[in-house]
Amino acid sequence: QGILERLDAGEIVIGDGGFVIALEKRGYVKAGPWTPEATVEHPEAVRQLHREFLRAGSNVLQTFTFYASEDKLENRGNYVAEKISCQKVNEAACDIAREVANEGDALVAGGVSQTPSYLSCKNKTEVKAVFRKQLDVFMKKNVDFLIAEYFEHLEEAIWAVEVLKESGKPVAATMCIGPEGDMHGIPPGQCAVELVKAGASIVGVNCHFDPDISLETVKLMKEGLQAAKLKAYLMSQPLAFHTPGCGKQGFIDLPEFPFALEPRILTRWDVQKYARKAYDLGVRYIGGCCGFEPYHIRAIAEELGPERGFLPEASEKHGSWGNSLSMHTKPWVRARARKEYWENLKPASGRPYCPSMSKPDGWGVTKGAKELMQQKEATTEQQLKELFQKQKC
Amino acid sequence: QGILERLDAGEIVIGDGGFVIALEKRGYVKAGPWTPEATVEHPEAVRQLHREFLRAGSNVLQTFTFYASEDKLENRGNYVAEKISCQKVNEAACDIAREVANEGDALVAGGVSQTPSYLSCKNKTEVKAVFRKQLDVFMKKNVDFLIAEYFEHLEEAIWAVEVLKESGKPVAATMCIGPEGDMHGIPPGQCAVELVKAGASIVGVNCHFDPDISLETVKLMKEGLQAAKLKAYLMSQPLAFHTPGCGKQGFIDLPEFPFALEPRILTRWDVQKYARKAYDLGVRYIGGCCGFEPYHIRAIAEELGPERGFLPEASEKHGSWGNSLSMHTKPWVRARARKEYWENLKPASGRPYCPSMSKPDGWGVTKGAKELMQQKEATTEQQLKELFQKQKC
Amino acid sequence: QGILERLDAGEIVIGDGGFVIALEKRGYVKAGPWTPEATVEHPEAVRQLHREFLRAGSNVLQTFTFYASEDKLENRGNYVAEKISCQKVNEAACDIAREVANEGDALVAGGVSQTPSYLSCKNKTEVKAVFRKQLDVFMKKNVDFLIAEYFEHLEEAIWAVEVLKESGKPVAATMCIGPEGDMHGIPPGQCAVELVKAGASIVGVNCHFDPDISLETVKLMKEGLQAAKLKAYLMSQPLAFHTPGCGKQGFIDLPEFPFALEPRILTRWDVQKYARKAYDLGVRYIGGCCGFEPYHIRAIAEELGPERGFLPEASEKHGSWGNSLSMHTKPWVRARARKEYWENLKPASGRPYCPSMSKPDGWGVTKGAKELMQQKEATTEQQLKELFQKQKC
Amino acid sequence: QGILERLDAGEIVIGDGGFVIALEKRGYVKAGPWTPEATVEHPEAVRQLHREFLRAGSNVLQTFTFYASEDKLENRGNYVAEKISCQKVNEAACDIAREVANEGDALVAGGVSQTPSYLSCKNKTEVKAVFRKQLDVFMKKNVDFLIAEYFEHLEEAIWAVEVLKESGKPVAATMCIGPEGDMHGIPPGQCAVELVKAGASIVGVNCHFDPDISLETVKLMKEGLQAAKLKAYLMSQPLAFHTPGCGKQGFIDLPEFPFALEPRILTRWDVQKYARKAYDLGVRYIGGCCGFEPYHIRAIAEELGPERGFLPEASEKHGSWGNSLSMHTKPWVRARARKEYWENLKPASGRPYCPSMSKPDGWGVTKGAKELMQQKEATTEQQLKELFQKQKC
Repeated sequence: QGILERLDAGEIVIGDGGFVIALEKRGYVKAGPWTPEATVEHPEAVRQLHREFLRAGSNVLQTFTFYASEDKLENRGNYVAEKISCQKVNEAACDIAREVANEGDALVAGGVSQTPSYLSCKNKTEVKAVFRKQLDVFMKKNVDFLIAEYFEHLEEAIWAVEVLKESGKPVAATMCIGPEGDMHGIPPGQCAVELVKAGASIVGVNCHFDPDISLETVKLMKEGLQAAKLKAYLMSQPLAFHTPGCGKQGFIDLPEFPFALEPRILTRWDVQKYARKAYDLGVRYIGGCCGFEPYHIRAIAEELGPERGFLPEASEKHGSWGNSLSMHTKPWVRARARKEYWENLKPASGRPYCPSMSKPDGWGVTKGAKELMQQKEATTEQQLKELFQKQKC
Repeated sequence: QGILERLDAGEIVIGDGGFVIALEKRGYVKAGPWTPEATVEHPEAVRQLHREFLRAGSNVLQTFTFYASEDKLENRGNYVAEKISCQKVNEAACDIAREVANEGDALVAGGVSQTPSYLSCKNKTEVKAVFRKQLDVFMKKNVDFLIAEYFEHLEEAIWAVEVLKESGKPVAATMCIGPEGDMHGIPPGQCAVELVKAGASIVGVNCHFDPDISLETVKLMKEGLQAAKLKAYLMSQPLAFHTPGCGKQGFIDLPEFPFALEPRILTRWDVQKYARKAYDLGVRYIGGCCGFEPYHIRAIAEELGPERGFLPEASEKHGSWGNSLSMHTKPWVRARARKEYWENLKPASGRPYCPSMSKPDGWGVTKGAKELMQQKEATTEQQLKELFQKQKC
Repeated sequence: QGILERLDAGEIVIGDGGFVIALEKRGYVKAGPWTPEATVEHPEAVRQLHREFLRAGSNVLQTFTFYASEDKLENRGNYVAEKISCQKVNEAACDIAREVANEGDALVAGGVSQTPSYLSCKNKTEVKAVFRKQLDVFMKKNVDFLIAEYFEHLEEAIWAVEVLKESGKPVAATMCIGPEGDMHGIPPGQCAVELVKAGASIVGVNCHFDPDISLETVKLMKEGLQAAKLKAYLMSQPLAFHTPGCGKQGFIDLPEFPFALEPRILTRWDVQKYARKAYDLGVRYIGGCCGFEPYHIRAIAEELGPERGFLPEASEKHGSWGNSLSMHTKPWVRARARKEYWENLKPASGRPYCPSMSKPDGWGVTKGAKELMQQKEATTEQQLKELFQKQKC
Repeated sequence: QGILERLDAGEIVIGDGGFVIALEKRGYVKAGPWTPEATVEHPEAVRQLHREFLRAGSNVLQTFTFYASEDKLENRGNYVAEKISCQKVNEAACDIAREVANEGDALVAGGVSQTPSYLSCKNKTEVKAVFRKQLDVFMKKNVDFLIAEYFEHLEEAIWAVEVLKESGKPVAATMCIGPEGDMHGIPPGQCAVELVKAGASIVGVNCHFDPDISLETVKLMKEGLQAAKLKAYLMSQPLAFHTPGCGKQGFIDLPEFPFALEPRILTRWDVQKYARKAYDLGVRYIGGCCGFEPYHIRAIAEELGPERGFLPEASEKHGSWGNSLSMHTKPWVRARARKEYWENLKPASGRPYCPSMSKPDGWGVTKGAKELMQQKEATTEQQLKELFQKQKC
């Protein structure tokens, strides 16, 4: 059954987690470029991560094609050997995802994301051509449906949806925005409306913000769709990092991004709360993005087990709400084998010399860093700001 | 070259990370029992984790045989299907480790750990018989050397070393103790001395405490050995969790163990500091235990790259001290591509409603949990305490 | 020179601090009723606090007549002996303030605040009569100007201003509101506009929120006045407590109010930042409310010393930016005798088991407290909510 | 009745709080020199603070003669006008204390503290002469008993006790040390024993550490006295600041000393816990030092009200355990009018960008500060260290 048939039938669809962050920690992706050449270089590592998500309950395996557009791979060329063409990376991604999907009951979704071409002001025709190259591979490999994700600019997202829609396959679209809307200040409600008008059957957010902020954004999208009397399924794939007090561009601007985010990682219980809250809001495609490891996805599947009527395979190795601890040798650890304990625990950071919040960088960047940037680039802050604001002419 | 030849030649030996915690998150190990039947059930998952550690720089792959003694597996029987015998689990563990070790320049170490037999007061002959069963497999599979690890009682550790020593292979021994010493209050210095006298060539600590506390303990071991004019190599495999203010039994007694430890996870920079500090103390077998993921091991290899003269394979996908960020699109993120930035950053927890420290459970257990234990077990605290103190007759 | 002459001449007017909180800690005011009978019972204590503020730089001494309306004193009757009439409390307050004002260059301001009569739905005539009783005393004692402060409802504040304006003396008006506006949701800009139309020459906020939130509110007032093309002086008298994440009613609803606010107290350096920010916003009547002790007022006077051209008397006993520490015996304490040190220090709480934020009570009140309220009052939450919303018919 | 008669009769004696910190905030004492010339310059301010402590329950009013030795006042000469002689400062302090003591049931204690003469290696005769000058005033003014307090070196404390003992009046002696003992490493038990042998009838600690650490030290003193079979009353006057993780010299070395300690201030409930703990340990002279305001002293008197059978005068303005809040207008604030609420509350700091702990300065001083010291003083750290260690030849 396809993605829309499942959703039409009232099923809860569970997405997968974040590949670039997980594989960076496993040693197969480089932070900075964040490109997915591992599909060719180390297929066994990609395959294993897909398999873990499948076992954890994912109903969709996204092809590991994030930032795998030709312009991005070229742009990051010093990291990707010439011999690995864009096409090979995308094809391998499809093959691996399909291979693992066949081990269970999962769909394969081909994914495209934001492009350097758009940011460097290429026109609509040029940008669409970039997406179309990836789409050609997805069609050849016959993925089940398509996702346009991680867009900061509504306009680019619309172009992506329009290209994907040419395929005739169902299209989902998510933006990496918060309640303030896209980089031009277009509010989430309007983003959702225009994406649906462009052809998306499923809309929502991914990345950049934690579950609370992301669901606040999805709520605004829902309200926008209702006001416009449009129907679409809602989707959320937030970070597995707490990001209170973030600015408009989310966790990218936190001083801890991307190498010191550990203290912000969600516990599995945080994820259960997220899953319940998403469900109550009416979201039916519930997954995760950066930071979501297999056990986080399992937590979604376990929280919504009563509604779905079954648990994922990996729950064989997990006691619901910690009940496997009833076998622990120490009585005070056995006393933790209950829902109330984990639900109410406020986990300590173990870092008494660290604060609980940090100020985002960006245009509120610290003086020291600014000086450094200026030295490196002979660019005043004002120039940088103008540059940024005019990235899209 | 064997482990002792390498150490004799002045090499730094890098250990691997924690299997039970990593594979629990990947969906293959159950928290509570923490047994390694995955070697038979899902060899591909175990193999992939070994491979990631190898690529990250590990010179030693420990067989995934933690808690794989026959008495423990039986004791946890409802989790391990009868058909998976203790022998099979141990044999598969050896085969997988050897297979991956052959992909690079790594040694295979067979490992034994504390047993239920000892805690339930079986005698020396009986306990040694348990260790010998695992040793038989290690000899048959011809591992390169042996590790006795995760012992809380010096006596049991000595018995383990004596058994392993029968093999003629080099033996390393680590205890999961802090500066206060073993469960009977035997100080770390004395523990080290007696383990060396029993036949260990390498001694140190693993698990239960963070790097700072663990190295404090290793320092006491070093001083004990010096005072006794004994020579042995030092080894440390601490947690990748911050554990300030822990009690005698370390992170087990923290309220966050084992399902809400996320905010305590070490960053890669915390690990680099640990690696340097361990090296400066004279430790030459430097690895990790619970919480250590491949990128943590890579951080050890990168910190000690200048001393070792080379970097691990996985550093191809990592810019030292964040320098890969120099390719980031946002200038304030590019400004993070330098050592000073990450070295001095105090990462925020993103959890403004959570404290930074928590009170350990155990005999300082909270009233509510005590009541619960009492209801469940009709046992007064005093009885529990006596039980615990008399666990070893 | 009167208050308006000073402001017209471009002077910065420094207000005083919070009497009820300071005198509660000194043992002369009871938390809960918060009434000022100490003017009669212990005039020496009130006089001394006025004197400390004067020495610290206050240009205005407010009569200690907070909650000294007849209806409030009666309402709190079990605390105030019958023999101390409302008139006596107000007269003594005026006498003490004038006596100390004459020791320096300060004005005396008679103050009125919100009344139980308004909250219990008395009509305009009745409520105005309450204010008029206090005003009669202020006229008899010939205070220099009048302040209507601590109003949560714009309507009541307008009535107060109208009464005070009958006197012919200048009137200042502050509300204890945040950026969300008054209890009926009337935004700060509109509040400011209507207060000026009612006759106030100076408008602003006092109490309930920390300096940052308070100045955000004053900024909205300023914008409202500009939009309406009205001219008035701006005034701010915030809390000396950090209150991030507060609800609409500010610090009252924090679980720590009023007996565990210590960790939130502003340092003198926090106050210097506030003074600078207020000045830059165009505020020219800058003081404090609850929590402001004499040294906090001195910090305002010291920060704005360059603009004002002089320091307060109490600065004889204070080294600017800690420079008196240059006499300390320990070199590392001497090293703290500089602005950069204190300006950049992030003070630790010394409370590693406490969080940095707390959830406000109120309609988001905890279950336990709700049950308690219900037992005590046989009132459902809904009833309470209705009661509250209809407090003003 | 004298101090010893009261203690002999089993009374709990309540001390007073910290004058220099309280009067610095009120504008009468300068941080850095910390000298008490306010007794002559502003007697009304000193008198009022004494009165507040008396009303709060203090049974002892200490003369405000801290650092009022002739050598210290000369040393701090630029702050104290020549015309205010050491004798005048001490005499005025006695007069004010006696005047207020006569308003209630309190004793007057003349106090001496550590001297620059000792630190600059003057001999025993010279140092004793300094103490004797102050003692002459105390005898002339006929104080009720004497206190030698705030000594870091046992030797100097003994000399002080010997001088005070010449008077024939009872002598109490407190050192500002923690569990590690005095600056030469003499442990608390031995300090207590030698002070009693020198003539002190009451021994204990004051200043430098929080209640928990201070009581730990007093416990060691108690054990030392018991082991030596000596009898003396125990006394504690700790800080009203939380100081976990302090070094040997306590809060002086915290980066927040003395101008950013606010987040560390004890709540009244923290003080009640301290009072109970001190009482349970057998301490019968229970007071406070720096940071203790009148309401903190009142908290001691209220906690021990059941044992003493009465409450202090200032409790007329205080509801035990917050019960005065039962008159509050908001139901959720009324719900805080109970012991369990305040006893269990973990107060938030309201400072999400600040850590909970800080590293002490001193020989672990930060690099930046060290450089600054070096520039200023052309002194290497080693020289500083030597200087410090040889301060007392």
